[in-house]
This record gives sequence, structure tokens and C-alpha cells, in this order.
Amino acid sequence: MKVRVGKKTEFYRTVWLDGSALKMINQTLLPHRFGIYASLDYRHTAEAIKNMVVRGAPAIGATGAFGMAQAALGFSGSSMDAFGKNMKAAEKVLSSTRPTAYDLFHGIKTVMDGIKGAKDVTQAKKHAVSAANQYAEWSANNCRLIGEHGEKLIKKKTGSTGILTHCNAGALACVDYGTALAPIRLAHHNGKKIHVFVDETRPRCQGAKLTAWELVMEEIPHSLIADNAAGHYMQRGAVDIVIVGADRVAANGDIANKIGTYEKAVVAKENGIPFYVAAPTSTIDFKTRAGKDIPIEERDQDEVLHMDGLAAGIVPGIVKVRIAPKETTAKNPAFDVTPARYITGIITEKGIFGPGKMKLLKIS
Amino acid sequence: MKVRVGKKTEFYRTVWLDGSALKMINQTLLPHRFGIYASLDYRHTAEAIKNMVVRGAPAIGATGAFGMAQAALGFSGSSMDAFGKNMKAAEKVLSSTRPTAYDLFHGIKTVMDGIKGAKDVTQAKKHAVSAANQYAEWSANNCRLIGEHGEKLIKKKTGSTGILTHCNAGALACVDYGTALAPIRLAHHNGKKIHVFVDETRPRCQGAKLTAWELVMEEIPHSLIADNAAGHYMQRGAVDIVIVGADRVAANGDIANKIGTYEKAVVAKENGIPFYVAAPTSTIDFKTRAGKDIPIEERDQDEVLHMDGLAAGIVPGIVKVRIAPKETTAKNPAFDVTPARYITGIITEKGIFGPGKMKLLKIS
Repeated sequence: MKVRVGKKTEFYRTVWLDGSALKMINQTLLPHRFGIYASLDYRHTAEAIKNMVVRGAPAIGATGAFGMAQAALGFSGSSMDAFGKNMKAAEKVLSSTRPTAYDLFHGIKTVMDGIKGAKDVTQAKKHAVSAANQYAEWSANNCRLIGEHGEKLIKKKTGSTGILTHCNAGALACVDYGTALAPIRLAHHNGKKIHVFVDETRPRCQGAKLTAWELVMEEIPHSLIADNAAGHYMQRGAVDIVIVGADRVAANGDIANKIGTYEKAVVAKENGIPFYVAAPTSTIDFKTRAGKDIPIEERDQDEVLHMDGLAAGIVPGIVKVRIAPKETTAKNPAFDVTPARYITGIITEKGIFGPGKMKLLKIS
Repeated sequence: MKVRVGKKTEFYRTVWLDGSALKMINQTLLPHRFGIYASLDYRHTAEAIKNMVVRGAPAIGATGAFGMAQAALGFSGSSMDAFGKNMKAAEKVLSSTRPTAYDLFHGIKTVMDGIKGAKDVTQAKKHAVSAANQYAEWSANNCRLIGEHGEKLIKKKTGSTGILTHCNAGALACVDYGTALAPIRLAHHNGKKIHVFVDETRPRCQGAKLTAWELVMEEIPHSLIADNAAGHYMQRGAVDIVIVGADRVAANGDIANKIGTYEKAVVAKENGIPFYVAAPTSTIDFKTRAGKDIPIEERDQDEVLHMDGLAAGIVPGIVKVRIAPKETTAKNPAFDVTPARYITGIITEKGIFGPGKMKLLKIS
């Protein structure tokens, strides 16, 4: 993705392996600071996932795969039996970081499959690194393809196309390109006139902090709005299409995505606005029959009771402020489920499919 | 309303006239500080409305009436002609503070009507003060009656009733009792088991700051949630009834209320949850035919780009932090329109009416 620092433009991926160190754009500092976070072993990587240094289903998937590669690289010894136990332990630690995103399990499994049949530890380490790197390449390429398929949906004949997006399903949520933002990036690149309405996405404000930052970097016209204002703009005809990401797609086409997605989908349907979910097929969990079976992560109530941002001052710094009375407690479900009936289509690397057509993607 | 400061419990109104000074609870400091704001003349009062020291349709109505009384009291001279011009000037200044809330115009008009026929300036001043005080009493009493009518809707036979509310339609939004919070207060007082889901209500977070504070003061069980989470709890069956306030009710039963109300109403209907609007009949604007004719105030984008709250530290202070990148701009509509078809009923001081029955309230 494009990162402009001062007058320089550089290209970054969200997460990449550098020797045995896993490097990632530190998303907890954006948009106020741009910094790289280096994790030296898989436990440290698991912490980075938990603390949302890296987040977004496809990015978590690649980070999980890279974490497994780190577990392999960090093993000292030559017993394949002990190596296998070490990998199992890492699998357990990395799997338990975030419960909702399905890509995580897919990324981890890819590396576990990659080391099968290795003749010794040296070869197993090589296979683990190569499986993780291939997973990341494949994941980035899937997003690129999602962009190509989804871009065709942005096709207003006159004037600017209003696009609503929720949370950050951008390059930062993936290895590169993004899922929901991939078609938006490409449409802008192809000269289409667009205007993106960015839900700020409380409580963590990934829309205000991350999506807005990506759009600034790409110079794509956008307006930040309170999550509450999305319905107003849909009602007034300013939104032509809604595109969001997904953390998990169930076999019946229900999806789990960032809390608030469900409300946007219901209001979009009520106003006859097409509602698309952009997600690689690795996000589809065929073992989960329906949305109600997807576990919903409940995060710390502090995220709702507080907000952080850049405080002005002689030395500007990132400050956390409490919004609510000290006696008030909060509930903080991180995701919600959008039933398939509200979804116009799912934009995958293999094309756009109705939510009822997930089965086709299983056999292909 | 009940205010607990340390171990002391005191009772306050939101706004009251003390000599020629207008005193009000300073709502920009809550929930972190409790303080009284004193305005010495009507221009100062107009500023207090604009800056949301006082907010909420019925409270703005009373503040408008009191501001007019201040304009009368502040007049020096004995010419009834000059007095009349002075009142006209005050009417203009106070009317232009906030465009959406209909009660404001009603409060101002009450005082203008009250001074009609006064035989001299001394009498006119007396009439103005007495009209404003009567308006405030009448307004508080209406809220008390709204509480009595609305409380009957909270009637779950077993377990706790889940009530969702948006923004602050509490005592702080009125002279006392509240509109949406009046039935909630009374149900709790009557020993009914309830749990209130409080939408934080970005951008200004009146839910997190004011509604949560009122519920803490009354010791009513509640959970603060991100606005995005309301749909999730409605979908999962945790919400039995939604009660919100209104800034204006159109003749056809459409309402304007805090941004985000529309989304909650659509999602409530989709889930078969009754959606009630609590508002005194003074909020009904019979001259406005439908919701689309209600002017929607667009407030400063800074409210979306920033958030304020209490920062921890050696000397805790209220700090404003920027959430979004410095290049990002925001849109900030303060209200949205909920069409009558999503509204189960409007709880007024005269009883509960379907939104199609507004006409009945005109002739009664």
C-alpha cells in the first residue's frame, strides 16, 4: 500500500517476515504516527494480534501463518517429535488470540500442512517459512482479484458514486490492497468519480483512524461520519452502494463482521441500496452452518468507556480519555452477524456470488 | 432530578430563573464535573444554547422562554414601543440558536403572548417572568405525565425488561423528569426490574455522558454500548422496547431526533420490537407537514473529528483528542428523520397516540 511520509511515497505490506522477525505496521499508532512493530517470536506475535497491533481477518490470517513460521524457526533441536510438539503448542497459542476471524485458523493450518512429510527439522523450518510466505502472497493476490471483480460494481453513469464502508477492510486489514477497499482503490485508480462515506466505527474507530488514513494516503475523496449518520445518508440518496469486509462467512452466506455491520445492512436493504461483502474464499467457514453459530468476541469494556486520540499541546501526544461516568459499565461485542438475506453479493477472488451460492465455492 | 454529590442527595432542575440570572446545570462538564452555569442576559443565554451548555428540545424551550424573560428584565426605559422592539430583537437572537427543536419557538412564543396587553413596562416585565416560569412548570409537569403514561408500557411478566434508549432524553434534556427517561425513572421507582441499554450517541456522546450520569444518580441498572451494538442486542432478543425523545414531530407523525435514531427505528421494526417516541405535544409542529420538511442542523465537523473526556494524570482534566488524520474532513448532521411507519406510538402528556393520530392532539 501507498504510504506518504512527508514528500516521500513508499510501498508497504501490513505484515512481512524479515529473517525470524515478524514486522508489521503498528496499527495502534495510526493515523497519528507511522511506525513498524517487530515481533521476535510467536508468543510476541500472538500478543500483537490480541492487542490489535495487527487486525483485520486476512491480515490476522497471514500473521498467524507467519507466527507459525516463527515457531518453526525458533525451535532448537533436531527431534522431529519435539518439533511437532512445539508446533502444536504454537498452534494453540496463536489460535486462541481472536475467536471470530476464520482466516486465522486457515493461515495456521496452511503452515501445519506445509510441514507435513518434511524429512528433518531443517527441511521443516524451510517448508514452514515458504508456506507462510506463499500464504501471504496468495492472500495479497486474492485481494487484488477482489478489487478487479468489485470495481465493476462502481459504475454510476453520471456524477460521483457514493460508497459507504464500515470499519477498516483496507490494505491494513489484509496483507495488501484490502477487501472492501480494493474495489474502491481500483475505481479511483481507473479515474472513476467516487466519494467514500467512512463510518468512524466505534468503539475502536478503525474507520476514523485506519480507513481514513488509507484514503488520505491514496488521495481518495472521503467524508468521515459518526456511525449514527450512515442511515441518514442512505435515506437521503447519497449512498449508491455499501461495501464491507467479513471476519467469517458461514456456509449459508450469513457473515460476521465488525459490530454495526448488521445495522447498516438492514438500513441499506430498507432503502434499496446494494450491500456487498468483500472477502476472500478463505473467510468462508463451511463447518459453520449459520451466522448464529459463529462465536462473537466480547472485548474489554474499557474500549467503550474510553477513547484515545492525539491531544494538542506543546508536545502533542496520544492520550486516552474517559467518556462515561466512573460508575457506569459497558458491554462490548466486537462483531455482529448479518444474515444472508441482507447481502446482495459476496465479492471473492473467484468472482461475485450471491450469499446462497457459497456451496459453489467449496467444490471449485 | 436527583443529584448525588458525595453522600449528599440534592434535587435540581435543568434550568431556573434566579432574579434576572438564568441558572442551568452545565451539561458540557458532565459526567466528570457537576457545575452550575449562570447567564446574566439573553444574549449570554443564546450562547449557552448554541454551545450546548443546555440542550434537549424541552430544556431548550424553557431556556428560550427564560431568555425572553431576561430580555424583558434587562430593558431599561418606560416606552412600551421600545420595549416591544427589544423583545422582537431578543426573539430573533434566541430563535436562531438551534434550528431543529420546535419547543424553542413554542417557549419564546409563550412569553411573547404573555406580554400582550400589558399596560406598561413594569407590568410587561412581570408578565414575561410569570409566563416563562409557568412555561417551565407546565413543561416539567408534561414530562411527569409522560412518565405515568409510558411506564405502563414496561410490563414484562418475568425477568428484567430490556430498554434501549438513544441520546439523552432525560431530565437534563427537559426542565425535569425527562421524556424517554421519565417512564424508565418511574418504572424503576415502582420496583419494576429493568435494564437500560444506553447508546453512547456519537458524536457528542450524550448517551455516555448524560444518560449514563442520570442513571447512575438514580441507581438504575444500565450498560453503555457503542451505537453500533444496538442492532446486535435487538437481534439477540435483549431489547424489549425502544424509547427515544424527539426534537420535532411533524403533522404526519414523522419525527426528527438525534442522528442515529432512524437506524435504531428501522432495526427495531425489522426485529418486531416496539419503538416509542416520548415527547410533549409542544414538540408537535402542525405547520410542518412531513419529516422531510424539518430543517436538519449541520454542526461543526470538529465534533466528529475529535472526542473529549477525562484524561488520567496527576491532575485529571478534560482533554479533547483528535481521532482522525489531520487531512480528513467530516460531515456532521445533528439529527435525522424517522418516518411515522417505524413508530409504534408517541407518548405525550395526554396519553399514547399512534403517529397517524397527531391531528387529534391539535383540536384537544
